[in-house]
Amino acid sequence: MNVIDSTPLPLIGAETQLRADAVRNRARLLEAAARLAAEHGAAAITMESVAAEAGVGKGTVSRRFGDRNGLLQALLDHSERQFQEAFISGPPPLGPGADPRARLRAFGPALLRHERTHLGLYLAAEPVAERRFSVPAQRVRHTHVAALLHAALPDADAELLAHTLLSSVDVVLVDHLIRNHGMSLERIEAGWHELVGLMVERA
Amino acid sequence: MNVIDSTPLPLIGAETQLRADAVRNRARLLEAAARLAAEHGAAAITMESVAAEAGVGKGTVSRRFGDRNGLLQALLDHSERQFQEAFISGPPPLGPGADPRARLRAFGPALLRHERTHLGLYLAAEPVAERRFSVPAQRVRHTHVAALLHAALPDADAELLAHTLLSSVDVVLVDHLIRNHGMSLERIEAGWHELVGLMVERA
Repeated sequence: MNVIDSTPLPLIGAETQLRADAVRNRARLLEAAARLAAEHGAAAITMESVAAEAGVGKGTVSRRFGDRNGLLQALLDHSERQFQEAFISGPPPLGPGADPRARLRAFGPALLRHERTHLGLYLAAEPVAERRFSVPAQRVRHTHVAALLHAALPDADAELLAHTLLSSVDVVLVDHLIRNHGMSLERIEAGWHELVGLMVERA
Repeated sequence: MNVIDSTPLPLIGAETQLRADAVRNRARLLEAAARLAAEHGAAAITMESVAAEAGVGKGTVSRRFGDRNGLLQALLDHSERQFQEAFISGPPPLGPGADPRARLRAFGPALLRHERTHLGLYLAAEPVAERRFSVPAQRVRHTHVAALLHAALPDADAELLAHTLLSSVDVVLVDHLIRNHGMSLERIEAGWHELVGLMVERA
C-alpha cells in the first residue's frame, strides 16, 4: 500500500480559489438548466442542451452531475433551497419577524407561486408513493409549517395539521385542479387562506 | 359476409341462469383473493394461488381477469364498492339519515378502518401521480365529501375543502405516519375529528 506520509501545509488561498471556481461553474450550469426549463419545460433539459446553453462541452456537464437524473435532482435542490431560504431567513411575512399566523398565511401563496414557476421540474421529480412524505424537501417544509402551527395553536395536533395544510397545496393536486378542472390559482390561494383562517382564528 | 338472419327469441331464463353463474363464479374468485390478501398480504395474490384457493384451474382465473393486474383491479373495485355502499346507502351516521356534520365525522374513521383492513391492496394499487386525483374511486369519495361539506357549509369552497379532508387521511400518508412515525390510528382519527370540527363548528 502506497501512502504519502508527508503532510503538506494546507494551501488555503489556492483551495478556496478552486472551490469557488467549482461552485461558480456548477451554479452556471444550473442557471443554464433553469433557463431551459423555464422556457421550454423540464423535458427540454438534457446533458447536451444544458452544455450548449452554458457554452461548455457535454463532458463538463457529465463530470458535474453524472447523468440527466443527477442534473434534474441538482436543479430541484437548487430551486428548493431558494424557497427554503425565503421562508427560513427571508423578509417577513414569509420569513422571521412576522407573527406565526401571518407567516402561515404567507407560506401557501409563496409555495404555490414557487411551484408554478418550476412546475415541470417539480412534476418530473414527484417521488414514488412510498417516498412522498419522507423526501428531505418535504420534511423541511413540514417541520417549518408544524412549528408555526404549534406557535399559533399550542393545543392542536400541529404535526397532523401541518400535513393537512401542505397536502392542500400539493403540486400534483394543484396541477390537477388547474389543468383538469379549470380552477384559477387565485381560488386555490383563497382556499389556503380559508383553511389557515379556520385553524388559527379559533385560538 | 355470413349473417345469421333468423332472430331467436330471447331465452330469458337460460340467459339469466348463465349470468347468475358467471357472477357467482366471479364473486367466488374475488372472495378467494380477498382471503389470501387478508391472511398473507397483497403480494400473495397470484393467478395460481387464487385458483388453488378457489379450487379451480388457473385457466378459469385467466379467462375471468386476464392477468394479475386485472385481478388486483377487480379486487380493489370489489373492496371499494363495499365502502361506497356503506357511505352512500348504508346505515347512519355514515349513510343517509344523519345530518351532514355527523356523516362527515363518521366518514374519516370509516375510511381509515376500511383502508387499514385492505392496506396491502390499496398500497399496491396506488395510482401514479398524474392519476392520483382522477381515478374513479377517488372521484366518488370526493363528490360525496364535497356534497356533505356543501350541505353543512353553503358559503365555503366545498370542492377544495373536500380535497383537504381526503388528503388528511390519504392511505400513503396514514401508512407513513403509522409505520415511520409510530402514530396510532386513534391519533389520526382524532386529527380527522379536529379538522372536521374546525370546518363545521364555525357555521
